[in-house]
Formats: sequence, structure tokens, C-alpha cells
Amino acid sequence: MFWTPIFGIAGLLVAGLVYILVTRKPAGTDRMREISDAIHEGAMAFLKREYLVLAIFVVAVFILLSIGIRPFSTAFAFLAGAICSICAGFFGMKAATKANVRTAYAANQEGQATALSVAFSGGTVMGLSVASLGLLGVGVLFLLYGNAEQAVIINGFAMGASSIALFARVGGGIYTKTADVGADLVGKVEAGIPEDDPRNPAALADFVGDNVGDVAGMGADIFESYVGSIVATIAIAATAAPALIPTLAGSSVFDVEVVKLTAMQLPLIVATIGLVASLIGVLAMQVLQRFSPAAALRYASFVAAGVMFAGSYFAVDGLALSEGVFWAILLGGLTGILIGLLTEYYTGGPPVGKVAESSETGPATNIISGLAIGMQSTFLPVLCICAAIGFAYHFAGLYGIGIAAVGMLATVGITMAVDAYGPIADNAGGISEMAELGPETRKITDGLDALGNTTAAIGKGFAIGSAALTALALFSAYASTVKLEVINLTSPMVVIGLFIGGSIPFLVAAQTMTSVGRAAFRMVEEVRRQFREIPGLMEGTGKPDTRRCVDISTVAALREMVPPGIVAVLTPVLVGFILGKEALGGMLAGALLSGMLMALMMANSGGVLDNGKKHIEEGNFGGKGSDAHKAAVVGDTVGDPLKDTSGPSLNILIKLMSVVSLVLAPLLID
Amino acid sequence: MFWTPIFGIAGLLVAGLVYILVTRKPAGTDRMREISDAIHEGAMAFLKREYLVLAIFVVAVFILLSIGIRPFSTAFAFLAGAICSICAGFFGMKAATKANVRTAYAANQEGQATALSVAFSGGTVMGLSVASLGLLGVGVLFLLYGNAEQAVIINGFAMGASSIALFARVGGGIYTKTADVGADLVGKVEAGIPEDDPRNPAALADFVGDNVGDVAGMGADIFESYVGSIVATIAIAATAAPALIPTLAGSSVFDVEVVKLTAMQLPLIVATIGLVASLIGVLAMQVLQRFSPAAALRYASFVAAGVMFAGSYFAVDGLALSEGVFWAILLGGLTGILIGLLTEYYTGGPPVGKVAESSETGPATNIISGLAIGMQSTFLPVLCICAAIGFAYHFAGLYGIGIAAVGMLATVGITMAVDAYGPIADNAGGISEMAELGPETRKITDGLDALGNTTAAIGKGFAIGSAALTALALFSAYASTVKLEVINLTSPMVVIGLFIGGSIPFLVAAQTMTSVGRAAFRMVEEVRRQFREIPGLMEGTGKPDTRRCVDISTVAALREMVPPGIVAVLTPVLVGFILGKEALGGMLAGALLSGMLMALMMANSGGVLDNGKKHIEEGNFGGKGSDAHKAAVVGDTVGDPLKDTSGPSLNILIKLMSVVSLVLAPLLID
Repeated sequence: MFWTPIFGIAGLLVAGLVYILVTRKPAGTDRMREISDAIHEGAMAFLKREYLVLAIFVVAVFILLSIGIRPFSTAFAFLAGAICSICAGFFGMKAATKANVRTAYAANQEGQATALSVAFSGGTVMGLSVASLGLLGVGVLFLLYGNAEQAVIINGFAMGASSIALFARVGGGIYTKTADVGADLVGKVEAGIPEDDPRNPAALADFVGDNVGDVAGMGADIFESYVGSIVATIAIAATAAPALIPTLAGSSVFDVEVVKLTAMQLPLIVATIGLVASLIGVLAMQVLQRFSPAAALRYASFVAAGVMFAGSYFAVDGLALSEGVFWAILLGGLTGILIGLLTEYYTGGPPVGKVAESSETGPATNIISGLAIGMQSTFLPVLCICAAIGFAYHFAGLYGIGIAAVGMLATVGITMAVDAYGPIADNAGGISEMAELGPETRKITDGLDALGNTTAAIGKGFAIGSAALTALALFSAYASTVKLEVINLTSPMVVIGLFIGGSIPFLVAAQTMTSVGRAAFRMVEEVRRQFREIPGLMEGTGKPDTRRCVDISTVAALREMVPPGIVAVLTPVLVGFILGKEALGGMLAGALLSGMLMALMMANSGGVLDNGKKHIEEGNFGGKGSDAHKAAVVGDTVGDPLKDTSGPSLNILIKLMSVVSLVLAPLLID
Repeated sequence: MFWTPIFGIAGLLVAGLVYILVTRKPAGTDRMREISDAIHEGAMAFLKREYLVLAIFVVAVFILLSIGIRPFSTAFAFLAGAICSICAGFFGMKAATKANVRTAYAANQEGQATALSVAFSGGTVMGLSVASLGLLGVGVLFLLYGNAEQAVIINGFAMGASSIALFARVGGGIYTKTADVGADLVGKVEAGIPEDDPRNPAALADFVGDNVGDVAGMGADIFESYVGSIVATIAIAATAAPALIPTLAGSSVFDVEVVKLTAMQLPLIVATIGLVASLIGVLAMQVLQRFSPAAALRYASFVAAGVMFAGSYFAVDGLALSEGVFWAILLGGLTGILIGLLTEYYTGGPPVGKVAESSETGPATNIISGLAIGMQSTFLPVLCICAAIGFAYHFAGLYGIGIAAVGMLATVGITMAVDAYGPIADNAGGISEMAELGPETRKITDGLDALGNTTAAIGKGFAIGSAALTALALFSAYASTVKLEVINLTSPMVVIGLFIGGSIPFLVAAQTMTSVGRAAFRMVEEVRRQFREIPGLMEGTGKPDTRRCVDISTVAALREMVPPGIVAVLTPVLVGFILGKEALGGMLAGALLSGMLMALMMANSGGVLDNGKKHIEEGNFGGKGSDAHKAAVVGDTVGDPLKDTSGPSLNILIKLMSVVSLVLAPLLID
């Protein structure tokens, strides 16, 4: 198994190479460089201050784990997970803030194909960093503790990754929406200037927010799912009941211990194959560039998925595991794609027209229809997940659920690259507007940005689906580790746990929404003040104080990310120790259910309201400036914190609560 | 036990007497009578057409039950339940549409105390009808089948009540919000005329809607909870595992069969005591009138609760049952009150000021803060329910959960009277405005109406809390009836059931919201057309075509209430037969969890947005006509279908799915 960390290091080297290639591209005019530097500075300043807060948290949890959890090494695994997650976010953001301006310049000088390639390369750094750091971290820990007795230590790595993810997602989400709402409400609606106008004091904070929220936050989210699914599958295999082993063995003659160990290795092997497959997908982009950007990205993902499936088939076969295990992997991968497509339908298909139409009778009907579509959109994805669970279990027992999650996430290198491409293209568009590169360039970046919205919607669906399956795998690992064969829903303690767990996502969603509301209020006041007090700002002769707006977003994000973090970490501890391990199992199930449903609803409501507005801006139902458009802008503002702050936070919440429970598990065995 | 139906008949006679007393009061001027008659006609016309649709449904289900379910009498019990529910709604609405105009006249002629008394008397007819018909129906069935073998037949009665409730709640909710949104958006916002202005073509439909939704719909909801809690408790006792019996017996020497039968009788006895207690509470209003209206209503409820608790204590003691059973009853009653008070806090306390303040930055921030408060407001009520479940189980096992629900609902006679008072006072205010009775009268009715909003908020919290506890009792009864001692959350089938169940409330909420959106769209178009095409309408010389608006609401309600009904009835059947009885158990738990959370969130979001708007109208943050007010009107329009259509539908949904499963149970025993 020493190949796994080596592949991890190799992946990181490739990521470094891509990064160097990106930075070698020309960064454009002085004005462009100035804007890009300001974005880079703002993002790095935020990260530095965020890491300071995180350091305190990580050290505190490290000490608590060292005292409370045996074996002692769990605390070190936690530390490693936290550091890897931080590095993944840092590398990805560094690359994204270099790629955005270069994408803009490539669009200006060389046209769409090169611009797409630069933006995608920027995303590739993020994707490869996430996959490689995950493989490296879990791989090294597996070399040290990859046996049935000590595997529990590896859980600490997932907890480290999860903790950082929550702060990164919540902090990033609050940052980006505070800036966005402030920029939109005052700049666009009140002052009537375009979105990325240089006169808008909040525009820079808005750019920084895209990187902080959609690159670093999303990266931490997916890193957590990736690591979580691998760790959960290892834990399920390590603590597998004897009855599970024959299901996993490829033939009727087998050695129990060998099957167990092979089953523990498989998730890492599949993930390694997935990393190689992702690299092949990235290389394929060189050939696929001749297609339309949308097709190129899609085909590249399909190539990677195909290679991963084929490799996994031979791996499962070569390791003498049951064919059912391969079917579970395939099923997981297909479910991820299907949920992504469903998300695309609900946020980009016919429902968009309905939402746009409903804004003709005002913002209220617009919002009602957006919320309704969000609620409706939960059903089919949930059905997909149910089918995946049912068949995966049928093929390979509880282990099937874990390995299906790994199958969904194995090609994360390219999935994440496609996803991170979106905010880079978005930033590139903004920079083109600010640096006044002209309508031709803006047209190219707009096209890339529109595609980015689609990939972002698919990415969000994928993030929720993989979070749900990972959380379920972690839940199974928890039950397996605390030796609970039964979590009985007719027992009132389990029902109490279920109810408490179910209400936590509502509470955290409320916290994050309130945070955005509060911070956006301050941002709106500040932007209004600048328009009022800075002479010549509207005329373009005065300069906006963008630093102040960046500061408001930064402070708000850092302050407001703490309470949800405390809720997520403390609730499992309290429920576990006060109400017992069975109630804690109920709590995880309740949180998973309501978290998944709310995350789907919020992401898709926000997405369809956003695209409904864009549909009107394209000239339908009266177009820009019409009453319908004004109504849709209000709807979009309501949808924004739902889809970019509260919804994504819930992905992390359900995984973090599960992983905290898994780490606590040794203390809860009677 | 023959006393139970006799008390039921006696209660109905008292309700009839109160009705006669109300109709003997003067109905005011010709103009008032004309308006009142129009409301009465509109409401009755709707009910007649609704009953026609229901008749088809009831007959179809009756036939299916006769074929599929043994014993055969279950189908007749279903029929009886449906008929009793229809009668309760009919009596209540008849009284409410007579009381509204008389309340207005009393306010005009005799002042606040008499007006309160008339409105409360109108509500009393509803409250007593609900309680008496429930007791009569279940009481007669218990006389026929009140033994451990045949008690399963009585479940049919609850299913009948539930089916009607769903249609009444959904239909009523769609009716009232279609009219309300139409009247508000065009009349208030676009034309700038007051809410109940006679020139508004949708004003009459709005009045009718209050009766159809808030009286008949709410009555059916509470009737269902009342009947459901009693039936579930009987079922739990009838199918009790031997281990439960010693917990219920009052001493260590007991006869198992006697304890079982006594435990089956107790819910009916407690409900009978509750009816008597409610009558005492109603009588106490004569004395309590001298206090402020708010205090009078509160004290009357407390008197009834106190009498019920005392009576129950002696009943439990006299029947030689364990004291723990009494504690469970007490706990249930107190939990109901506590959840009501929490609802009052979230929709009437400090959060109102926050929502009002947030509308200063526009409708988007207003709605975000309203939704956030709704989400936040789920936590404490859920914690209350958890505490009730935990302690009730501690005191009396699974039976404790059922009897706690009965304790919460026993004084439904007065709870419902207080609740139905609200829409009567609201209508009285509208009639005063329309008949131009002058500002003095309007001031009195406004005061009564404001109080009505508070009682409505409390009533909604109570309805959700009691629905959750009743559904849980029904869930326990289901598990007990299909002999499932374990519904195992680590089994994937249960998880699949849980996920499917959890997504159904989202689906139904989406259906009902879309229905309101669609119907409101049609209503808005119609009202705009009338303002455009009828000459002199704004000047008061032309007459609006109110009939057309009533018709739009009626047709929309009837058409749109069918799909949610089908979803609610079919889902348990499909899950039960395809995925099995354990998955069905998981489905009920999932639906209960997400239904309860969404119902709380929707009711409280809607409530706080409504009161936030009223807070501004009282002169805060710029008062009526300010930008903040306009923003808050949009927020209120978004909140309206949440709190009055979708949220309440979920109460019924979770009970109906549970009761359908309970009726199916005999077919699912291996």
C-alpha cells in the first residue's frame, strides 16, 4: 500500500507543475494586475486571519482529544487532517487568484479556447490538491495503522478535515454573501450601476468572496467528503461483523483476515485509480478543447469516470473480492452523475421559466415559486440516494454503502477542477468589466461564466449527494464501531435523538442566515455611506474605499463562523454522553435526513431564483429594468444566502457530526 | 363506558343551545345582513361542492377497505369517522358565519365585553362539536368493539377523520390564501385601498376564506388529532406487550386482562372529563368577562385544564392504574401549553421587532430574517416534545406517549373555541369596515382581532405539537399492531423508508405552495381586470363582481386539494407493500420528523412576517406607506401561504400517513 502516498505526492507535483504553467501566462495590463493583486491580497489576508482562529480551535481540540481519546495517536491524525485541509484550500485559492486575471487576458488576446484552458488549469490545481492531499494523508496513516485494531486512529484524520471544512464553508459562505448582497442591493438596485462596476465599493469584496466561498469553501467541503468516505469504508471493513465477510469475498474459499484487510485497502486503491483517471481526464482536455466548452468539460469528466470504473473492475477482480463490490462502486459513481443532472434540471431547466414568469406578479410570487421548486426538487435526488443505498447494500452489505460513496468521490480530482473553474471564470468576467477590456472580451468571459453557473449547480448537487452518502457511511461506521447492531426507532431515546438531530440543521441554517443578514446590513450601510460621502464617486472621479468593505466581510465571517462550529462539535458529545450511544445514532440519522433535505431545498431554490433572474435579463418577460426584473432581483437576493451560505454549511454539518461521533465511539462502547 | 357517547350527545345538545343563543342576537343593519349572507352563502356553496368531491373519495376508499381490510367493519368505522369530521366542520362554520355579523353589531351597540362574548360563543359551537362528535363516534365504536381482539376496527374511524381533515385543511388553506393574496396584492398594494374595502372584488372571497380555512380547516385538523390520540392510545393498550402491563397497574397485585381493558378505557374517560372541564371553562367565561379579553380567554383555558387534570387524577386513581399514567397526562397537557407560549414568543415577542427592522433594507432582508426566525423557532418546541416523550415513556412506557397526547387534547372543547374565536373576530372587523360602522366599532373589533391573531398563533403551535405527539402515538400503535419490536435504523430498508418519508412533506408543501401561487395568479389577473373594466369601481359607483372571485377560489381549492391527498394515502400503501413493514415504520418516522420541523418553521416564519408588518403599521420604522412597510407587505405575502396553507397541511399529512399505516397494519403482519 505504500503506492498510495507516492501517488499522492506525484499528484501534488503535477498540481505544482500546472500552477507554474498558469503563473507563466501573461497577467495583462497594469490595471488588470492591480485588480488581480487586490483580490489576491484580500483573499490571502482573509485566509491568514481565518487560520489564526482555526489554530486556536485545532489546538484546543487536539488537547481535548489527547486527554480524552485513546489511542493517543488519534489526536495527531486529527492534526494531520486539519493541516491537509488547510493546505488544499490554500493551494486552490492561490491558483484561482492567479488564474482569474490570466483567463481574462487570454479571452482578450487569444479567444475562448485558451481562456477556457487557463481557467480549467486553475481549477485543476485545486482538484489535484484535494485528491492528492487526501490520498497522502490517509495513505500514510494507513501504512502506520492499517490493521483492524488500530484503524480507529485514522478516523481522527477525517475529523480534522471536517472541522476545518465547517469553518471554511461557513466563513467563506458568510464572506461571499455579505459582499454580494451589499454590492447588489446598493450598487445594482439603488445606484443603478452594473454588477462589477469599479465605482462599487463592495465589488472587490465580492470578487474575493467568490474565491473564499466557492473555491476554498467548496474545496474543503469536497475534501471532507472524499476523506470521510474513504475513512468510513476503512472503519466499516475494520469492524465488520463476521456475517459480512462472505458477501465481500470473491469466491467461497477465503481467509477471513485477508478479506478484511483487502476490504480495508480497497477504498484507497479505488481513490488512487480515481486520481490517475482524473489526470487522464485533465490531459484529455487538450484534445477535447475543440468541442464547445460545456461539452469539453463534460466529456473530460466522463473519460475520467470511465477510466476509474474500468480500473476499479480490475482492482476488485485482482484482489479476489466479490463482483458485487464493483457494482456498488459503479452505482455510487452513476448516482453522483445523476444527482448532478437532476440539479441541473431543477435550476436550469423548465422550472427557470416558471420562476421568471411568476416574477411578473411581484417579488412575493417569485419567491414562493422559487421556494416551492426547491422543496419539490428534494424528492428525486432522495429517491436516487435511496436506490443507491438499497442496491449497494444488496451487493455488498454495509460495506457497499461506504464503497459506493468512494466510487462517487474517487474522480474528485476532475470533478473539483470543473467546479473550481466556475468562480475563476466569474472573476475573470469581473476583471474584464473593471479593467474595461471591451464588449468582445466580456462576451467570451460571459459565456464561460454562464457555463460556470451550470457546473456550479451540478457541483452543488454532487456535493450534497456525496455528503449524504458519506454521512450515511460514517453513520454505519459509527454503529459498527460502537457495536450497535440495532438502533431501534420504537425506543423513545432513539426518537428523542432523531428529533434533536433533525432540528440541528434548522438551527444552524438559521444561525448562518441571520449572520448574513446582520453582516449584509452593515455592508449596505457602509456602501450607502460611501456613495453619500465620497465626492465624485458616482461620476468616476472619486475612489471607493474598497478595503473597508473587504474588512467588513472578513470580520463578519470570522466572528459568525464560530457558533455553528460549536453547535456541530458539541451536540454529538452532549447527546452521546447524556442520552447514550443509541440516542446518538438516532441523532445522526435525524440530522442526516433533515440536513440533506434542507441542503437540497436551499441549493435548488437559490439556484432557480438566480437563473430565473438571469432568464429575465436575457430579455424575457420585459427584460432588464422591468418590474419583473426588479422582483426577480429581490428573489435572487433571498436565494443567495440559501444556496451559498446556509445550504452548503449543512453538507459539512451532517458529516462533521457523524465524524465527531465516530471519533467519540471508543468512549461509548459499554 | 356507555356514559361516553351520552356525554357526547349532551355536548352536542349544549352546542346546539349555544348556536340558538347566538342566532337570537340581532344581526344589525340591512347592509350588514347582506354582507353576512353573502359570506354564509359563499362558505356553504364551497362546502357543498367540497363534500361532493369528498363523497367520491370516501365511497372509493370505503369500497377498497371493504375488499382489502378485515374485519369488514373497519370500512364502516371509516365512514363514521368521515361523516363525524364533516359534521364538525359544518356545524362550526355554520355558527361562525352567524356569529361574525352579530359580533360586529354587538361591538357597535353594546361594546367590547358583549362582542367578545358573542364571538367566543360562536367559537364554542365549533369547540363543543369537535369534542362531542369525537366522543360520540369513538365512544359508540368502543361499546361495540372495545376489546383487545376487535379494537383494531376503531382505527378506521381515525382514518375517516384524517382523510376528511386533509382535504378540508388543504382545500381551505388554498381557498383562503388565493383570496387573501389576490385581495392584498391588487387591492392594497396596487390600488391602494384598505384591506376590507367594499370596492375590492376579492374582499368577500377573503372573508369566506377565513371561515373555510381557519374555522372548518382548523376544526378538522384538531378533530383528527383528538380522535387520533384516543384511537392510538386504545390501540397501544389493546396490543400491549406483556412487559408493559405491570408499569400501568397501580399495585403489584393485578389481573392482566383487567389492566389492559382499563388502559383501553382511560383515554375515553379522560376525554369525557376534558369535555366536562371545557364546559366549565365556557361557563367560567361569564364570570371572567370582566377581565381584559386576553386574560379572560387565558383564564378560561386554565380553569378547564385544571379541572381536567384534577378529574384525571381521580380517574387514574379510581381505576387502580399507576400514578405514572397521571403524570403522563399532566405532562402532555403542560407541553401543549408550553409549545403554545413558545409560538407566541417567536411570532409575537422580540423577534417581531427584528423582522420589522430588517424590512428597512428591503423585502429580501425582511424575508431572510423571517425564514431564519422560523427555522430557529423549531428547536425549543422540539426539545419540549422530546422531554414529553422521554418522561411520558419513563412514567408509563409506550402507553405514556399515547395518553400524554390525550392529555394535551382532552380540553379541545375550549382550546378550539378560543381558536375559532379568532376568525370570527376577524370577519366581524371586516364587516364593520364594509358596512361602514365607524371608527369606534372598528377600534373594538380591531382589538378583538389583534387578540385573535395571538390566539391563532398559540393555536397553530398547539396544533403542530399535538399533531406530532398524536402521530408519534399512532406510529407506536402501528409498530405495536404489526408486532415490530424493532425498527432498526442500521438496516438500509429502514433508512430508505426514513429518507422517502422525510421528503414527502417537502413534496406536499411544494404542491400546496404551487397551488396557491397558480390560483393567486388567476385571482390577481381577475381583480386587475375588474378594476380596469368595471366603470366607476374605484370611485364607488360601480359594483365589483365578487361572485367571480369566490368562484376562482372555490374551483382552485377543489382542484388542488386532490394531488396531496393522493400522495398522503398512496405513499404508505406503496412503501408498505413494496418495501415492507419495517421500511414503512422508517417512512413514518421520517415524515413525522421533517413534517413537524417544516410545519413549525412555516407557521412561525409566516406568523412573524405577518406581525412584523403589523408592527410597522403601528407606526414603527416609518409606519404605513413607508418603504419598510412596502417591504414588509411583500414578506407577509410570502409568509401567508407558508403559515396558512402549506404548514397546516403537514400536520394532517403526518397523522394521515400514520393512520393509513395503522389501518393497513393487519395486512402487513407476517
